[in-house]
Amino acid sequence: MSSVPEFRYRRRVQFAETDLAGIVHFSMMFRYMEEAEHALWRAAGLTIAEPGGDIGWPRLAAECQFRNRLHFEEEFDVLVRLADVKTRTLEYEFTILRGETVIAVGTVTSVCVRKGPGTMKAIEIPAEVVEKLEAALEKSSG
Amino acid sequence: MSSVPEFRYRRRVQFAETDLAGIVHFSMMFRYMEEAEHALWRAAGLTIAEPGGDIGWPRLAAECQFRNRLHFEEEFDVLVRLADVKTRTLEYEFTILRGETVIAVGTVTSVCVRKGPGTMKAIEIPAEVVEKLEAALEKSSG
Amino acid sequence: MSSVPEFRYRRRVQFAETDLAGIVHFSMMFRYMEEAEHALWRAAGLTIAEPGGDIGWPRLAAECQFRNRLHFEEEFDVLVRLADVKTRTLEYEFTILRGETVIAVGTVTSVCVRKGPGTMKAIEIPAEVVEKLEAALEKSSG
Amino acid sequence: MSSVPEFRYRRRVQFAETDLAGIVHFSMMFRYMEEAEHALWRAAGLTIAEPGGDIGWPRLAAECQFRNRLHFEEEFDVLVRLADVKTRTLEYEFTILRGETVIAVGTVTSVCVRKGPGTMKAIEIPAEVVEKLEAALEKSSG
Repeated sequence: MSSVPEFRYRRRVQFAETDLAGIVHFSMMFRYMEEAEHALWRAAGLTIAEPGGDIGWPRLAAECQFRNRLHFEEEFDVLVRLADVKTRTLEYEFTILRGETVIAVGTVTSVCVRKGPGTMKAIEIPAEVVEKLEAALEKSSG
Repeated sequence: MSSVPEFRYRRRVQFAETDLAGIVHFSMMFRYMEEAEHALWRAAGLTIAEPGGDIGWPRLAAECQFRNRLHFEEEFDVLVRLADVKTRTLEYEFTILRGETVIAVGTVTSVCVRKGPGTMKAIEIPAEVVEKLEAALEKSSG
Repeated sequence: MSSVPEFRYRRRVQFAETDLAGIVHFSMMFRYMEEAEHALWRAAGLTIAEPGGDIGWPRLAAECQFRNRLHFEEEFDVLVRLADVKTRTLEYEFTILRGETVIAVGTVTSVCVRKGPGTMKAIEIPAEVVEKLEAALEKSSG
Repeated sequence: MSSVPEFRYRRRVQFAETDLAGIVHFSMMFRYMEEAEHALWRAAGLTIAEPGGDIGWPRLAAECQFRNRLHFEEEFDVLVRLADVKTRTLEYEFTILRGETVIAVGTVTSVCVRKGPGTMKAIEIPAEVVEKLEAALEKSSG
């Protein structure tokens, strides 16, 4: 459906993710996007949080536009694309879909850091990370 | 510190709001912003969710830039401003501060809707809502 | 492994479910148990929350013993059994397992209620609900 | 009101803590109890999670009985008591109240551990911790 390589993560809405308005709370969309990002990393043979590792990926920015509502037990897909790769930052684009209906579109920007005790410093993204993510995106779009 | 009327909401970081990176999860910032918005409504003698009422305020868009990290038990303030008032939408601006340190800045746009069974329709914001919110902002900035 | 009919729900730990101690927050275990319960209902052709329906299943009690820790990205199973069926209440038993390692065991008791405006009243559990849950448990254990 | 020393923590229900049934999700009661526990620790001049420290307090067991429902924006109190102090474990008792109405009662048992890389070992609770908690409980009940 798309010429840009993208990864698809499927999920179902859980009860505790809804609020008194009867729909998924808007803050959950950012968690769904993160879950899809981390699933892409696993598909690439990577993990965003190596146990005992000193590299981290804190967020610099996140935004989301909400187009339609998600309800309890509905299944949906989160599509992830790598929108921009800079020396120290990755920008992901997401589309959340229930069937053909667009629920939300968003972007999240992360920076690669090395963590010390109580500190962190932006570093160059390891080349291998980008290569593996791009390979996983190509493979899942193929 | 500001000539734009703003409302201040104080909060402390709770344990379950942190993640394995030892900091507050980024999705929590959107919840903190929402808590501050709802506190502003209470200060205005309003509630965002009238029990049994048919008016709702779903979000159209939300974005946040993350400047510094928040940790367990730290106290912080969320400053709320009414950035833009349109016929059917409200845009809030937020600054999250720990002391003088900016943790995050963000905006959230909501639309006023009338809810029926399984439907909702954008409607004009009741004039009284804007008047009361603006009065509460003026008062808390005074 | 068991002669009591049970249903198995598989899940992976997500990042936001961990806390600064580097493990899944204990309150999440109750959400995992609930997710498994609702998956059992779906397997039985039922839903715990009929849209527009007036029957609900609030919790009367919940308890959990924590034996081992769960970490980010680990896969685990939640086993659900129907431990006790009374006229108005259902008691579920849960075992959370990572492979053969018991992470937690717990029970949750729910009561069947009819909801009116601002009220709810305990009612007899519809016979069909218990029949379908038991059939789904038998089938998934078969 | 009580001859057993207890600490009182006040809180208001936030929007994202409710679910589609229009009430606070039952798993939140465990978070409210934990927030009250940590507030007691702060009142005692302690913290449950010393930055860089190697002592932790994982939960062994938690249980809660739900008597009444909590709704959006309601204020409530969590009362904490130290129910049992053993060599390596602390058991807390909680009562969640909205005014005079009991919403829930629960207990949580924690074990004191020393954490190494990927391990943790139960240790004796430092005498100072129990002394300070008991002093804070006496003071807040006085």
